[in-house]
Order: sequence, then C-alpha cells, then structure tokens
Amino acid sequence: MALRHYTLDFSLSTAVDAASTVPGLLSIFHEQELTETVHDTDGHGYLATFVGKNGRLVVLRVHSRGLITIDLQCYDEDNIAQLDNLLNALEEKLRALLKDNITRVKRLPVLTRGANVDRYWPTTDGRLVEYDFDQVLYEEDSAYQNIKIFHSPQFGNILVLNGDINLAESDLPYTQAIMGSGKENYTGKEVLILGGGDGGILAELVKQKPKMVVMVEIDQKVMDGCRMYMRKTCGDTLDTLEGDCYQILVEDCVPVLRKYVQEGRMFDYVINDLTAVPISTEPEEESTWEFLRLILDLSIKVLRPTGKYFTQGNGVCVKEALSLYEEQLGKLCCPVDFSKEEVCVPSYLELWVFYTIWKK
Amino acid sequence: MALRHYTLDFSLSTAVDAASTVPGLLSIFHEQELTETVHDTDGHGYLATFVGKNGRLVVLRVHSRGLITIDLQCYDEDNIAQLDNLLNALEEKLRALLKDNITRVKRLPVLTRGANVDRYWPTTDGRLVEYDFDQVLYEEDSAYQNIKIFHSPQFGNILVLNGDINLAESDLPYTQAIMGSGKENYTGKEVLILGGGDGGILAELVKQKPKMVVMVEIDQKVMDGCRMYMRKTCGDTLDTLEGDCYQILVEDCVPVLRKYVQEGRMFDYVINDLTAVPISTEPEEESTWEFLRLILDLSIKVLRPTGKYFTQGNGVCVKEALSLYEEQLGKLCCPVDFSKEEVCVPSYLELWVFYTIWKK
Repeated sequence: MALRHYTLDFSLSTAVDAASTVPGLLSIFHEQELTETVHDTDGHGYLATFVGKNGRLVVLRVHSRGLITIDLQCYDEDNIAQLDNLLNALEEKLRALLKDNITRVKRLPVLTRGANVDRYWPTTDGRLVEYDFDQVLYEEDSAYQNIKIFHSPQFGNILVLNGDINLAESDLPYTQAIMGSGKENYTGKEVLILGGGDGGILAELVKQKPKMVVMVEIDQKVMDGCRMYMRKTCGDTLDTLEGDCYQILVEDCVPVLRKYVQEGRMFDYVINDLTAVPISTEPEEESTWEFLRLILDLSIKVLRPTGKYFTQGNGVCVKEALSLYEEQLGKLCCPVDFSKEEVCVPSYLELWVFYTIWKK
Repeated sequence: MALRHYTLDFSLSTAVDAASTVPGLLSIFHEQELTETVHDTDGHGYLATFVGKNGRLVVLRVHSRGLITIDLQCYDEDNIAQLDNLLNALEEKLRALLKDNITRVKRLPVLTRGANVDRYWPTTDGRLVEYDFDQVLYEEDSAYQNIKIFHSPQFGNILVLNGDINLAESDLPYTQAIMGSGKENYTGKEVLILGGGDGGILAELVKQKPKMVVMVEIDQKVMDGCRMYMRKTCGDTLDTLEGDCYQILVEDCVPVLRKYVQEGRMFDYVINDLTAVPISTEPEEESTWEFLRLILDLSIKVLRPTGKYFTQGNGVCVKEALSLYEEQLGKLCCPVDFSKEEVCVPSYLELWVFYTIWKK
C-alpha cells in the first residue's frame, strides 16, 4: 500500500480571514462526504481537518499571514480522478474568491509515501528530488553496507550504497572525470584503484592497455550486484578477479596500502573511488577526516614522483565539506598541490567536484 | 511567511494496530503540549491530529496495512531544533516499538510551502525536484508569458518561462546540442534562429564567424532580462539588435517565415529554439501539433537542400510526447529524415532529446 499526498497552496499579497474563504469551500467538502473538525489554534489562523471514506483526509489551513495550505491524503487504489476533481474544484473556487490577492498558486507533484520502490533520494545539500526508479533489481546487506540497484528508465540501472546514489549506467562522465577527463594516457601505466566496485573505472582503464591495474574493493556483494545489473558500466571486467592486465583484491585498502608502502611498490596513478563515508575493517579513526587523511597519506606514498591521484569530492553545493577536504590536503606528510573541476554526472541531479592531486 | 512540512514514515512487513504503538508516543506529544483529536476513519486505521503552540500541527496515522505516517507542520520562524528533537524522539520510539517489523524508515527533506523563492519545478514527467534557487533576479509578465530569472548557486542564473525551466548559465551543453553537438561548421553560413531569446545560440554562433544569422524572437522582455542577468550565456549579443553578422527581429516567427518562403530566401541552418508550448500572434491553430507542423513546414521550405534543422524535443521520460512529435515529421509537405540524441543539460535534472532534421 502507498499513501498519495497532494498539496495545494495559495500565497497571497495580503492575509485573509477564514470567514471570507472557508464557507465557500464547505459545499465542496460536503459533496465528497468529508466530515469536518475545526481545531483551536490559539490565534494561529484557521485549521480544519476533513475525514472521508476510504481513508481520505484533507487538512485546510488559512494561515494568519497570507498563505492558505491544503493537504489531501488518500490511498493509491482510491479513485484518483475523483480526487483530482476535488482539488480542481478547490483551486477554482479559491481562485474566484481570492482573485487579485493571489501571488502564487502551487500544486506540487503528488508525494507517494510507503511505496515499494523508494524514489526519493535527496541531494548532498538535503534537497528533495524524486527519481524515476520503477524497480529494485538487487538488494543486499553486506557486512559493510546496504546495497541496492534500481532500474531507472532514463539513467539505466543505478547503484545506491547506504542510501547514497553511487553510479548509474548513464554516468560515463563520472568515470571520465575521475580518470582525469581524457587528459591522461594510461597505456603501459601502473594504476591503483581504491574501491571502484561498480567496475566502471576498471572497464575504461583496460581499454587503454595499461601495464597493470590493481583494484582493491572491500565488498564482494557490490561487485556481485554490478556484475549482474551494471554490465553497461563494468563490461566483463568483474567476471574474473584476474584479467590480462588487472587484478582485483577483495580487501580493505588500508592494509594493502600499508603493505605497498613497506614494499616500496609504486604506481603512476591512484584513483580513489571509495564511498564518501568510509568503510573499513581498521579500528575506527578519530574521525572521518582522520580516515580520509590516512588514505591520502598512504596513497601519496605509493605514487611515483610524477604520478597523479584522482578522486571525487562532493556536491558543489556542500561548500563547507569541500573546504574541509581541501584543508586536509594541507596537512599531509608529503606536500601536495591540487586542482578541481565541476562535472555534471547525469544521475546525480547536482553538479559534482572532482580533484586531481600531485606531489609538489 | 513559509510553512515547513516534515514527514516521517515507517513501512512495515506486517500491519500493526494503534494499541501497540500510539500509547508509547503520547507522552512525547504531551511533553510538547500538543492537543490530541482522534478521528473516526470508518475502519481505515488510526488517525489523530495534534495541535500545539505557534501553529504547530502533527498528523499521526497508523494505516491498516503496514504503514505509519507522521506529518509535522510549523512556521519557519519556529524553534526548528525543538521540532527536530520531536521528530527524533518519535523516530527513536517507533524504532524501539516496531523493531524487526520495519522495512523502511523515511524522512523526506523538509517541504517549504509558501516561501518567497519557489524552489519546486517539476520534471516533464511530473516528478518533484527541489532546486537550490535563493533569489528572484527578474520577474516580468510580458504580453506572451511570465518571465522569471532565478539565481542558483550551482547553475548560475536561470531563465524560467511560464514555469518551464528554459536555460541556466551552466547549460552550454544545451546550446552545443541544439547547434549539432560540435559536428557543424558555421563559418560563412546563413542561419535562422527561431526564438532563442536567451541569446545562448546567437553568442556561440557569432564566435564561428557565420555569413549572417537572423534571430526571430517575439518577446523583448525575455531579451531584456537575459541581457541583464544571463550574460554568461548571451555575452554582449543582446546589447544591440544589429551586429556585424547578425540581426535580431523582435517579431512572431510565423509571418517572418511566410515572407521568407515568398521571397525564396534560403538558409543553411534553421535552429528552432521556441518554447515547448507555442507562443504566437497568429490565430490559434487547431492544436499544438498543428502549430508545430506549421513551423516545421515553413522552416523546411527555407532550408537549402543540404541544410539542417535543429531543435530540442522533450524530456526522455515523456515517451508519448516524443512519439507524437516524430509522427508529425512524417506528415510534412516535404519528406524529411531525422536523427536524435540524448543529452544531459545540467539544470534540467532529466535527460533531454534533441533532433536533427533534413530533407530526404
């Protein structure tokens, strides 16, 4: 079952009282057999609830400062055309009653609450966006995270980890950006991918015939899901852990990095595609920032002097988080410089910042 | 004034009755001095409203089939931290009461209703998206349409015509797509732009030194707004109606096209950047489709045999509208072929279809 929640709001240039609007609406509610309860708001405008058949509920508020709000809730198997008519009748009547006093009439797209497929996945700065997801293809709770793959008619299949939109099949621009936006030549190079369980970076890298790519992904279940449902992204790279020019280690990247540092193993590129909120088998670091700095420090240590470190940052709207990240870059063991780029990743519905970092 | 509307929803694997949940919540409501009214739903679950000080309202519903919904409304000048605490307390209590029965807990980002700057501009297929708009820079009602220019921290300034997102300063990908995605050479060519009042296409075209561009835009007020607030898009092209290699006619394009057909004037490219819903001084055609076909027919007539006609189509999600458009292409006086491309325009928050049309 799902609850459909409609809204209809009138913004007014001057406040109106309930006496001039509510009586004109009552006949519409009564026609629909809605039972009225008027509530005492202690001077904060008129507030009435109307309860009808089939679980219908309407909340009508004439606020004291130039705003009228109507909420209508019904079940998804209700007679939707009838409820549209009810809303249309209310809108028409209020337009007639309020005329030139109206500055805006707003009916939001219906909110669907409790639906099988959850379509609301907010942006990094907490704005509401509704995706077109129509199916859950894969859902697993691994030892590390909740993994979902949805189908989107426009973006293709899309990976969501712990509620964060990770990557859709439409999102080659993400993979291109985190590989340096086409300005790098990976042929014959040694590359380390941290995370990257969707296989997108790996699939693009192997096309360029690198000498060797090592990908360190902690979560086998992410790769299992992507191998099945994100093949437009990963191709056949996740079908085996050992390819011609790549190797996938299903491990926490921190001990692997520590081992490489100890062995003196170096890479031409390190591509950090870890989730924004760290996942690790390591003892908890003091904070997320400490953990990010640990990863950065170790990565820079395994980077050849001319090497480059690429990573995704965050949504351009969360300026504070971006600043804090850039602050960390000034605190590394080895001094670094960085550049950043704003990129439009189709399924993200917000612009995204990508970083390039290199040794000074 | 604006109303903040919070939601908190619990999806359950099996239905619960109110007796097992509601009593555990009442102390939380009473602490906040909220006055309870229980409504008769005629067998459709438990429904209670709670009215508090400062115009606060809570609606609690324990639906009969595995869903609990909570709505909380308050004014934007209310003590938001206190209301967050109320929601947190309700969520915590319900998590404790319902435990393993819970399949999803969802708190949507707060809906802001009646705010000065309207941030909700739905997609073509009617999905709810909240933009980051923080300011209205320009608002005019011209003879043809309502014109707004908002400021968006991430997309730059953005033109909205009659409630449709038209173009943001971030949207060079739109302009590039409607100019043929970089595959055309406009140097020395004659180009006709229909609409295009934001100046984006004109500004990109003149960089390529065409022989002559004629732009026919009906609405001076759109150009006035864009000249002031969309300069990253239009550059200085809208500062004058006559440039070195361009001319802007502030006219309805239909009579202009008719005149060109009569005179036998031809163009290498026609770029149709008219709004999706037609605006014209012509007598109303039978339907939108008739009007679109009229424009297409006239445009194809002024196109050189090797010429190309570019236009934006619609959101990829509105498949029916796209099919109907393509159907029109089979009904033109002069037979045409077409190709289409899906493009990610940053501020659209949905993928968009662009068409290239040419004479068979």
